[in-house]
Amino acid sequence: MPFVNVTEKAAFRPDKLSKVGLFDVPQMFLDLYCLEPGQEQKPHIHTDAAKVYYVLEGEGTFVMGAETQTLGPGHAVLAPGGEEHGVRNNTDARLRLLVAMAPNPSFP
Amino acid sequence: MPFVNVTEKAAFRPDKLSKVGLFDVPQMFLDLYCLEPGQEQKPHIHTDAAKVYYVLEGEGTFVMGAETQTLGPGHAVLAPGGEEHGVRNNTDARLRLLVAMAPNPSFP
Repeated sequence: MPFVNVTEKAAFRPDKLSKVGLFDVPQMFLDLYCLEPGQEQKPHIHTDAAKVYYVLEGEGTFVMGAETQTLGPGHAVLAPGGEEHGVRNNTDARLRLLVAMAPNPSFP
Repeated sequence: MPFVNVTEKAAFRPDKLSKVGLFDVPQMFLDLYCLEPGQEQKPHIHTDAAKVYYVLEGEGTFVMGAETQTLGPGHAVLAPGGEEHGVRNNTDARLRLLVAMAPNPSFP
């Protein structure tokens, strides 16, 4: 289906960050990341793929290369290919992120 | 800069849809589309690129292949490569869309 209600797709896990797949095509994926307080995506690198985060709810502390910023709703972050990146929820509230990555690593 | 305040980037044009570039890398771009009432992106096709729209504010009427849906904030739309797609603001209020496309046609 080409249409999705992202808000309704929110699903959190007590043990770790929850990644909810929204769209999957060879050129890119769109996911919803749901992070309870204290959860994180550890800093990592994709050599040839770019990732964009967009904050929907809550505040995320983003590591992007040598920079760290804590951002709330309406902010976006770019991780170019080869750049170390990660995000952590250091708050007491839930964090929801829209995440696009291109190309899609699930389509080799 | 890898961080951007998307909300502050909103910029509308009286004559046509306004596309505000947020991020540009070879694998993808992230834009903010701002549509005044009555403005549209006419249905068109990208043979080998995929596009995702996410509604930030207002309501957009999306054409995606043979389907048409009017969607508000929190909804996302996928246009796979080769699929005709477009969006129109048929309301009396402004429409803001987050738009990701992969790969980025500006990097041949």
